[in-house]
Amino acid sequence: MSKGVTPKSKDYARWYTDVITKAEMADYGPVKGTMVIRPYGFGVWESIKESFDKRFKETGHVNAYFPLFIPKSFLSKEADHIEGFAKECAVVTHSRLKSSPDGEGVVVDPDSKLEEEIIVRPTSETVIWSMYKKWINSYRDLPILINQWANVVRWEMRTRLFLRTSEFLWQEGHTAHATEQEAREESKQMLDIYQEVLEEVLAIPVLTGLKSEAERFAGAVDTYCIEAMMGDKKALQAGTSHYLGQNFAKAFDVKFQTENNKEELVYATSWGVSTRLVGALIMVHGDDKGLRLPPKVAPVQIVIIPIIKNENSMAEVEKFLKPFLAELKEIGIRFKLDDRQNISPGFKFNEWEMKGAPIRVEVGPRDMESGTIFCARRDTGEKTPYKIESAASTMSQLLEEIQKNMFNQAFEFREKNTFSTDSYAEFKNLIEKGGFIRCGWDGNPDSEAKIKEETKATIRCILLDEKIKEKNCIYSGNPTKHEVIFARAY
Amino acid sequence: MSKGVTPKSKDYARWYTDVITKAEMADYGPVKGTMVIRPYGFGVWESIKESFDKRFKETGHVNAYFPLFIPKSFLSKEADHIEGFAKECAVVTHSRLKSSPDGEGVVVDPDSKLEEEIIVRPTSETVIWSMYKKWINSYRDLPILINQWANVVRWEMRTRLFLRTSEFLWQEGHTAHATEQEAREESKQMLDIYQEVLEEVLAIPVLTGLKSEAERFAGAVDTYCIEAMMGDKKALQAGTSHYLGQNFAKAFDVKFQTENNKEELVYATSWGVSTRLVGALIMVHGDDKGLRLPPKVAPVQIVIIPIIKNENSMAEVEKFLKPFLAELKEIGIRFKLDDRQNISPGFKFNEWEMKGAPIRVEVGPRDMESGTIFCARRDTGEKTPYKIESAASTMSQLLEEIQKNMFNQAFEFREKNTFSTDSYAEFKNLIEKGGFIRCGWDGNPDSEAKIKEETKATIRCILLDEKIKEKNCIYSGNPTKHEVIFARAY
Repeated sequence: MSKGVTPKSKDYARWYTDVITKAEMADYGPVKGTMVIRPYGFGVWESIKESFDKRFKETGHVNAYFPLFIPKSFLSKEADHIEGFAKECAVVTHSRLKSSPDGEGVVVDPDSKLEEEIIVRPTSETVIWSMYKKWINSYRDLPILINQWANVVRWEMRTRLFLRTSEFLWQEGHTAHATEQEAREESKQMLDIYQEVLEEVLAIPVLTGLKSEAERFAGAVDTYCIEAMMGDKKALQAGTSHYLGQNFAKAFDVKFQTENNKEELVYATSWGVSTRLVGALIMVHGDDKGLRLPPKVAPVQIVIIPIIKNENSMAEVEKFLKPFLAELKEIGIRFKLDDRQNISPGFKFNEWEMKGAPIRVEVGPRDMESGTIFCARRDTGEKTPYKIESAASTMSQLLEEIQKNMFNQAFEFREKNTFSTDSYAEFKNLIEKGGFIRCGWDGNPDSEAKIKEETKATIRCILLDEKIKEKNCIYSGNPTKHEVIFARAY
Repeated sequence: MSKGVTPKSKDYARWYTDVITKAEMADYGPVKGTMVIRPYGFGVWESIKESFDKRFKETGHVNAYFPLFIPKSFLSKEADHIEGFAKECAVVTHSRLKSSPDGEGVVVDPDSKLEEEIIVRPTSETVIWSMYKKWINSYRDLPILINQWANVVRWEMRTRLFLRTSEFLWQEGHTAHATEQEAREESKQMLDIYQEVLEEVLAIPVLTGLKSEAERFAGAVDTYCIEAMMGDKKALQAGTSHYLGQNFAKAFDVKFQTENNKEELVYATSWGVSTRLVGALIMVHGDDKGLRLPPKVAPVQIVIIPIIKNENSMAEVEKFLKPFLAELKEIGIRFKLDDRQNISPGFKFNEWEMKGAPIRVEVGPRDMESGTIFCARRDTGEKTPYKIESAASTMSQLLEEIQKNMFNQAFEFREKNTFSTDSYAEFKNLIEKGGFIRCGWDGNPDSEAKIKEETKATIRCILLDEKIKEKNCIYSGNPTKHEVIFARAY
C-alpha cells in the first residue's frame, strides 16, 4: 500500500491498474475477462447508483427485473441488433454436470444438452420487448417507464478493470410510448439526467451529443451520448440514451390501440450507464498519489488519524474528538476514525491518499493542547488548522468546496485540451498530442472511416449545440453537415 | 383485474399464481424456468432488500460484487458442494454466434468453443474463496465481512413464481474468521437478523433451528435456518445461515498467520435470503381478495380513491385533500392518489384490494361536506370515518396497528396448526391435515428418510430451544436425540 504507483506520465495504463489494485477498488476474477468489485470500489458504485436511482424515480420510472437468459432466436429478431452482439455472446448449452469417467472432477453431462441454446443477456431489449408484447394492448397501458439494475455479459478477452470486462453491472432503462415525440423527449430527458449526475455528483464535465451512424447502438434510430475526457486526454463514452423508434416494436409485433381505436406500433427508448463510470472517476480525478474521490461519492469523506505515541493516549484523543464526531454524524458526513494500532500515522496517510478520501484530519498532542485539528485536502494538498468547536460545520463547507474544485479542475483540463481546426494536417498533429478536436464533418461515413484508419480517432459526438459557420469537412473539404468532436477513445 | 382469483380453499396453487398475475407482481419469462419481476413485485423486493441491507451494514458488513462465471473445476474442489449443485448447473460452452448457413437466423459458432466450460454461479462460495486466498495473509486481514446482492442460477424445470425459478435474486454473505467461535457467532448473529426482519418487517413469524444432515447446505458443517408456515400449512425455508468450518479454506488452501506466528486455516460462514421471501409474503398474508401487504413493505401504504361523478369535482377533491396529503408526505408515508379517469371507484377498490394496499381512503361529496375521510383496513376490512384535520397522524398509528395485527394473525394461525405428538399413527393423520408437528427424533438419518418416504414430511428444523423430556423418537421409539419440527414443505 505504501509503495505508491507507477507515475501517470510514465505509463498511464499501468498507473490506472496500480491505483485500482492498491486502493482495493477491484481485482481480476478467476475466469478470464471477469472482475471482482471489492468493497471499497463497490461503495463508490453504491453512491453512484443511488444518485441515478433517485432521479429515475423522481421522473416517474420504476424498477423491475427481467431474466438473465434470452432464447437464441430472440437476438436475431432485430437485424442490426444481432449484427452488433453476435460476436460477444456467452452461450449456455447444457444444464448439468456429472462425475468424470476417470473419477477426477466433473464433466458436462452430454444428456443435458438444451434444445435451444440460451444467450446470457448482453442487453435486454429483446427479452423486455417480448414481455411488453404481453403487457401492452391499449394507449391506457402507456407509457411504460421501466428501469433495471443488472449484470450483463459481452465476451471480452482484453480486460481492463471497470472499462472492459466480460461481465459488468449497469442500469438499463426501457420505455414504451404512444408517440414518437414522447419517446424522443424521454431519451433526451435521460441524457440530461446522465449529464447532471456526472457533473454534479461525479464532478466529471461531459459533452452531450448524437452518435454518428457508425457508432450508434445496434438497433437504435438515434443514440445520444455523454462523452468525457480522461486524464490521458482520451475520450470515454460515459453513458448512452437511445431513441429506438419502432424497431423493437416491429421485431416483437408490439401494437397498441390508440384513443381513436386505431392500431399502431409502440415507440421505444433505452438508456444505460455502467460500472465503467467508476473507471471514469479514477481516470479523471486520480493522480500519482492514487485516487481522488469527489466527496459526493467517497465512501469515507473524512478520515481522522490520531498521531499518538502510545495506546493510552487513544482514550484522550477519543475524548477530545467526541463532540466533533457526534456533530459530523448528525450532519450526515461519512467519516472514519482510523484507530488501527501497530500501524504508523505515515502509513495511514499514504493509504488514505491512495484511497482518495477528500479530507484527512490529523490529531496529535499539540493539536489537543491548542484545541485544534489539522486538515489536509486531498484535492489541493492544502493543510489548515481549525478550532475543534466549529470544525464540523467547516468540514461540511469544505466538502462542498472540494466537490466544486474537482469539477473545475477537470473542466479546465478538458478545455485546455480541446482544439478547433479546419486543417487535416493540424488535426493529425493534434491527435498525436491527445485531446478533443472540434471540427466540421461532411456527414459521409467514408470520411469518418478514413480518419479512423489514418489517425485512430473516432467521432465521439455530433454536438447538439452545433455552431457551423463557414467550415468545411476536415477530411473531404466538402461542405460541412455537422460540427463534431473527434478523439481517440477507450 | 376485477375478476378475482381462484379461492384458496379450492386450489391453493392456482390461487397463488392468480394473485401474482393479477396483482402484477411477476410473470413468466421466455426461457423455461425464468421469471420477470414486475415493478409492483420489485417494489416489495426493494423494501425487503433495504431492511436487510441496513442491518447488515449496522453489523459491520460491506457489499461487494463477484463474477457470475465460475470455472467448472472450482465447483468440484469441495466434495459435498459439487454433489449438491452438479445436477442444476447452467453451463456456458461457447462465446459467439454466427449467421446460420441456411441464411435464416443464427447458430452457435463452433470455433468459439471454450477451453474450459464455465458455470453460471448457483452460489458463490467457490469463486469468493478463490479470491480470499489472494486477500488473506495475516490475522490482520480478518475478519472479512462481505455481502453481495446478486442473481444466481439453479436449473429448474418446474417453475413456481418466486419459489422455484432457474434464476433468482438474493443476497449471499460470505465471511472469513480467525476462530471457530467467532465464525459460529457470526452465523447465529445473521440468523437473528433474518428472524428480526421476517417478524418485524414482513410480519412473518418464524421458527429458528438447525438443519438435519440430510437437509444441510452442500459444504456446511452446520446450517441454521428460519422456517415459516404458509397459508396452506406447509413449511417454507425462508433463509439459511451456514457455519462452514474450514471446508472452503481447505478446498482453496486459505491460511493465515496467527498473532503467534502460526499458520492456520480460515473459518467461514455464508448466509442468504432470496426473492422467495416475496412468495412467502403472498402465501402467509394473502386472502381470496388478493394480496395483503404489511405496511412496512407495501409500495403503496395508503391509496386514496375519489368517489366523484364528473371530472370537475376532481379539483374540489384535490383542494380538500391537499393539507392531508402534504402531511402524509412529511411523515414519510407512501401514498397514492388514484385519480385515473374513466375507471369506476368500484374497479379501483378491487384492484387495490388485489394489490394489498394496507389502507384505502375514500373521499366522496358527503365526506367533503362533513370534513371526514373514510378508511378501509385491508387486514380486517373495518371501515371508519376520520376527521380530515387529524387523519394523517391517525394513519400513521393505523399502519403500525395493521403491521402488528398481521403478525399476530399469522402467529395465531401457525400456533393453531402446530401439534405435539408421541404417536406415529397420530403423526400420519396430522400430516395429512397439514401443519407443523413437534416431536422427538432419534437423530438417525434412516428414521428421517423413512418418515419422508411414508409421509412426504421432512425435518424443517432441530429446535434451538429444545425441551426434550421423556420423549421417544416418533418413528423408532428409541430415545430421542433432538426435538424437531416435521412438516411438508415447499
